[in-house]
Amino acid sequence: MKNLLLLVTLLAISVPSIGDEGMWTLDNFPKKTLKETYGVNITDDWLETVKRSVARMDSGCSASFISPNGLVLTNHHCSISCISQNSSTERNLEADGFLAAAKQEELSCATDRISVLTETEEISEQVAKATAGKRDAEAGEARRQYLKRAVQDCEEKSGLKCESVSLYNGGQHWLYKYKRYDDVRLVFAPERDIAAFGGDPDNFNFPRWCLDMALLRVYEDGNPAATPNYLEWRSEGLDVGEAMFVAGHPGNTQRLLTVADLKFRRNVSIPHWLLRYVELRGRYIQYAAAGGEAYRTVQEPLQTIENGIKVQRKRLDALHDDALFSQKEAAELELQKAVAADPELADEVGSAWDDIGRANATYLQFRDDYLFIEAGAAFGGRLFNYARTLIRRAAELEKENEKRLRPYTEAALPRTEQLTLADRPFYPELETLQLSFSLDKMREFLGPDSPFVHQILGNESPESLASQLVGGTELADPAVRAKLWQADRETLAASADPMIQLALRVDTQARELRKRYEDEVEAPIDLAYEKIAKARFAIQGTSDYPDATFTLRVSYGAHEGWNEKGVDVRPWTTVSELFPRVTGDAPFRLPDSWSDARMTMSGDIKFNYVGTTDIIGGNSGSPVIDKDGKVVGLVFDGNIHSISGSFWFDQALNRTIAVHPEVMLESLGSIYGADHLLEEMGVR
Amino acid sequence: MKNLLLLVTLLAISVPSIGDEGMWTLDNFPKKTLKETYGVNITDDWLETVKRSVARMDSGCSASFISPNGLVLTNHHCSISCISQNSSTERNLEADGFLAAAKQEELSCATDRISVLTETEEISEQVAKATAGKRDAEAGEARRQYLKRAVQDCEEKSGLKCESVSLYNGGQHWLYKYKRYDDVRLVFAPERDIAAFGGDPDNFNFPRWCLDMALLRVYEDGNPAATPNYLEWRSEGLDVGEAMFVAGHPGNTQRLLTVADLKFRRNVSIPHWLLRYVELRGRYIQYAAAGGEAYRTVQEPLQTIENGIKVQRKRLDALHDDALFSQKEAAELELQKAVAADPELADEVGSAWDDIGRANATYLQFRDDYLFIEAGAAFGGRLFNYARTLIRRAAELEKENEKRLRPYTEAALPRTEQLTLADRPFYPELETLQLSFSLDKMREFLGPDSPFVHQILGNESPESLASQLVGGTELADPAVRAKLWQADRETLAASADPMIQLALRVDTQARELRKRYEDEVEAPIDLAYEKIAKARFAIQGTSDYPDATFTLRVSYGAHEGWNEKGVDVRPWTTVSELFPRVTGDAPFRLPDSWSDARMTMSGDIKFNYVGTTDIIGGNSGSPVIDKDGKVVGLVFDGNIHSISGSFWFDQALNRTIAVHPEVMLESLGSIYGADHLLEEMGVR
Repeated sequence: MKNLLLLVTLLAISVPSIGDEGMWTLDNFPKKTLKETYGVNITDDWLETVKRSVARMDSGCSASFISPNGLVLTNHHCSISCISQNSSTERNLEADGFLAAAKQEELSCATDRISVLTETEEISEQVAKATAGKRDAEAGEARRQYLKRAVQDCEEKSGLKCESVSLYNGGQHWLYKYKRYDDVRLVFAPERDIAAFGGDPDNFNFPRWCLDMALLRVYEDGNPAATPNYLEWRSEGLDVGEAMFVAGHPGNTQRLLTVADLKFRRNVSIPHWLLRYVELRGRYIQYAAAGGEAYRTVQEPLQTIENGIKVQRKRLDALHDDALFSQKEAAELELQKAVAADPELADEVGSAWDDIGRANATYLQFRDDYLFIEAGAAFGGRLFNYARTLIRRAAELEKENEKRLRPYTEAALPRTEQLTLADRPFYPELETLQLSFSLDKMREFLGPDSPFVHQILGNESPESLASQLVGGTELADPAVRAKLWQADRETLAASADPMIQLALRVDTQARELRKRYEDEVEAPIDLAYEKIAKARFAIQGTSDYPDATFTLRVSYGAHEGWNEKGVDVRPWTTVSELFPRVTGDAPFRLPDSWSDARMTMSGDIKFNYVGTTDIIGGNSGSPVIDKDGKVVGLVFDGNIHSISGSFWFDQALNRTIAVHPEVMLESLGSIYGADHLLEEMGVR
Repeated sequence: MKNLLLLVTLLAISVPSIGDEGMWTLDNFPKKTLKETYGVNITDDWLETVKRSVARMDSGCSASFISPNGLVLTNHHCSISCISQNSSTERNLEADGFLAAAKQEELSCATDRISVLTETEEISEQVAKATAGKRDAEAGEARRQYLKRAVQDCEEKSGLKCESVSLYNGGQHWLYKYKRYDDVRLVFAPERDIAAFGGDPDNFNFPRWCLDMALLRVYEDGNPAATPNYLEWRSEGLDVGEAMFVAGHPGNTQRLLTVADLKFRRNVSIPHWLLRYVELRGRYIQYAAAGGEAYRTVQEPLQTIENGIKVQRKRLDALHDDALFSQKEAAELELQKAVAADPELADEVGSAWDDIGRANATYLQFRDDYLFIEAGAAFGGRLFNYARTLIRRAAELEKENEKRLRPYTEAALPRTEQLTLADRPFYPELETLQLSFSLDKMREFLGPDSPFVHQILGNESPESLASQLVGGTELADPAVRAKLWQADRETLAASADPMIQLALRVDTQARELRKRYEDEVEAPIDLAYEKIAKARFAIQGTSDYPDATFTLRVSYGAHEGWNEKGVDVRPWTTVSELFPRVTGDAPFRLPDSWSDARMTMSGDIKFNYVGTTDIIGGNSGSPVIDKDGKVVGLVFDGNIHSISGSFWFDQALNRTIAVHPEVMLESLGSIYGADHLLEEMGVR
């Protein structure tokens, strides 16, 4: 009941955010609120240091510099690609952990990149000019082209890496400029059994005991990069109730979505996503039951989808809370009324809300086709993706930069190349499972009588076609991909590779579906949100924070527990509480290093803790920072209530979960013998 | 749009059913409508013949007698338990089909029973008297006890098998009296590849080519039972547009559910069901990928859940159709208004609608506990169920009959015994998968910190505990179960069997949850529905049909196709259209017998067909009957639109799918050489 009352206030449009809600851009950080609520002065210097010390990982995580020599702190689960790419049956870094005794032992992370935001520039007016007088599909195309051009110009002028960013659902457009490190290496990772102790059952739970940390290093020209802006440690961590800050790159929230869009997620997107991935989870788990290589190689994809399943399940539960949903409806109605009361604004905003519902209804007519044929749901695994990237690159490079699909623009091409050519371990049996599963779901969702399904499967079953494709293609070989990366359209058209041929056969229809999606769904929805954003600015001003967009944000809050169904949850855990929870089996099994530590490590050392900061997926790896700019923790999760943070923030229940500095520093020293790193971090 | 308009009419409470809607009880069959719509006179004789010729299978299907010697026509998929129980690696009846050349070769179906309705007796007044002046939990208990007593009295007096039946969601109570056959044998089954051609992809689809038929025989005292009431064949089937009738035992529909209950299904029950079973499906499919025994033995459970998944998915889609849902809300509001306008009625009905919402909210607080601990979701496979049945039998038999849990009342005990003691093949690896999966879901849904989870798993993982239990118990042996079926409480308490011990350990808490469910959820909801039913009777009269309750019903309609997104679907398929659809792989693979028939069988023979009759799960195996009482088909499925028939009937789209008599009779003769059966059926 308490929550419900809270939310009424929360959603009332005149008080857009309350309590510790908000993932703030640095130019709009609510210093005044901080001063009033926590008595803390946040200076421009503090914000600048944070900006320069906090980084983004292309894999979808956050990170921070913790030494002048490019040493990076992030989560184990944010480094899992790098760890598993460097693993083999003989040298299983996931199971056994890793420590580079010296810099030359640090291991290359083939698909990681790390970026630091340096400058931002608003270009809302230029975008408005580019789309002025245009409608829907035409406006969408004009906006896309303008933004690609702006990014390209920005990169040429600044020498930095540029991205276009839309804030407030299109209410503002910005260029974000990054210093980017393409050479990332693994320095330290603990064993998975302690990094992810409790596994999926404990994911999003608290109390918790996870050493979910890893250390990476960025390199330039083959040497450790100089990173003069970095964070120093406050080893003892925060006091209870003390103000804390989380700086990072939260992925996306949907707090400004309209009711029509929320319903679309509730009724369509989330249930359908769950239906596919929950079945794949069952396949993976049974596949892992064979043990050995099968078990080892499926862990990374399994953990990824298990995390997604928990998130989507809880999001669905949130959207099924009819009482909360009614509040969203009421808030929308209030905004609509305010718009209607202002004739000029009403004229400008028009039927924006209805437009979104209409575009979604249109989408529903071809959503399954779009999803399976263009968005890749029919073609799981990596091989088809390689094939499509190669043929699209060849086709797109024939066009002007601004007319290309985004991954093939000059700004985006290096990342596309890195992902395509990276030499990663390849597991044909797992790849066949993934491809065969997705072909099977294609047949299920599009129906056995779909012409596309007939075209793809012919007289083959999903299993037999997947086996033939995986067995017949040469694209698993990075040398073959590197060669084809240079190939033009004619060469690829003449290729005998069955996966290339499949990608070619699908491409016309896939591109038509993308075009239809962009023109009939994305464009009208973008336009509608722009109008709604304008209405919001006009009525509420621009003092509120925008939805998360995988760009730099700072959240604030306090180191505090919560009350779970009448029971106060203590805001931290200690080492001594870990051991009674241990069983002999994953995911509640300890690595030997930690079993051994039971007798030597102090039981009072703090392990994980929680606070009221407002975070979301993408904040993983974020440093927790105190008022003096010191690291006091490492965000790795939110509690179960944090998942509904996609749609609304609940101050009473929503909590960030972080690794405590005590357990990180103590275990680096006494368990892992990484004294050279502690020294580099300035702790010893 | 057409549909939407239709539904407005459909749901308007003053015209409760339209078109061919309705699964009618025989005492209330709309003869007048039939006469007006189809010009057909349905006589009491016609109804009486149908009643005596149509049967119910305990497995949840319908069937009919088609010879005077107990020969029974039903679906292959309704006989799948019998077929798979009689299969082994050496003699795979699922793959190869079966034909008994003579009666002595007919194979016993260990868990099947077949019943024929003989009499019905309304006892609404008696029930009302038994619960008069009582509320909620007390009324629920009184009703349960009265009904158990009434069933017992009925069996003693009539010598028949009696069941209590609640119609119109508790608006009426009846005793249904059956002649029951406990000895059922398999006579004929085609190969699975033709019986279920198209498998899960084609399930609920049309056009279709499934020979989904099987022949069984009921025995009495070791001899074929005399069944003087049986249906004769009309080999050429129906003309297009001709009236058709489906007689059978439809399982359940939810057309009278309140909005609160529909929301509970949409927001809670269906999504949670899907989450568990879709993952299990993934496990089963990957398990089957090992081939051989694993593949063979998992087919039956896999097909069962795949069917359920399709049904639940489409139900969820139906409930997510906000436009249709609003119509339900409007109809409910209209009924509520009509009630409010009649003070006496309003006083009687009180807060019935709110009561249901409140009871569901209460349920939500312990639903996961109830589901996993009492309703068995934590303990998959057969072994735990054996253990629980044995210990509950011993405990319940100490009580008076009317105070026992229903499966242990005198009337129900023979079925419980049959299911518990039947000698069925046992596959330990599959059983371990099922148990380990359900324990894993228990931990996921109840949470790793649940005291119950700790009590069950201790320091074991779901996998290791499942292995220990399946490996350690002796309950897979029917002789052991037969011995323990006699055991009293003390003997069982002293048993060293780990599964018995687990069931005992769980039982107190499980029974408490059942009690809580009965008292706090079931009782108030039953009471509320009784009140709403009274209101409905008062305002609309009793001319409408009740929701399906797995009791005898007759639906009517016409042999007609429908228009699917602008394309007219022809209402039948032929043999010649089957072959182009064949691939070399399951589920689109043909058995040799049918590949061979390609050259010899006439391509014009009709295969499957559709009609407008209103059916639902449980109607599988129903005969399609013409105006003269002849068999003109065998219901085996509905089209995809029929699934929303759970909640509303859509005359324009909802279709029954049946096997055509031509393909049944022709293949029995020319493919399977079952001339002796055709002769018995009076066709030759």
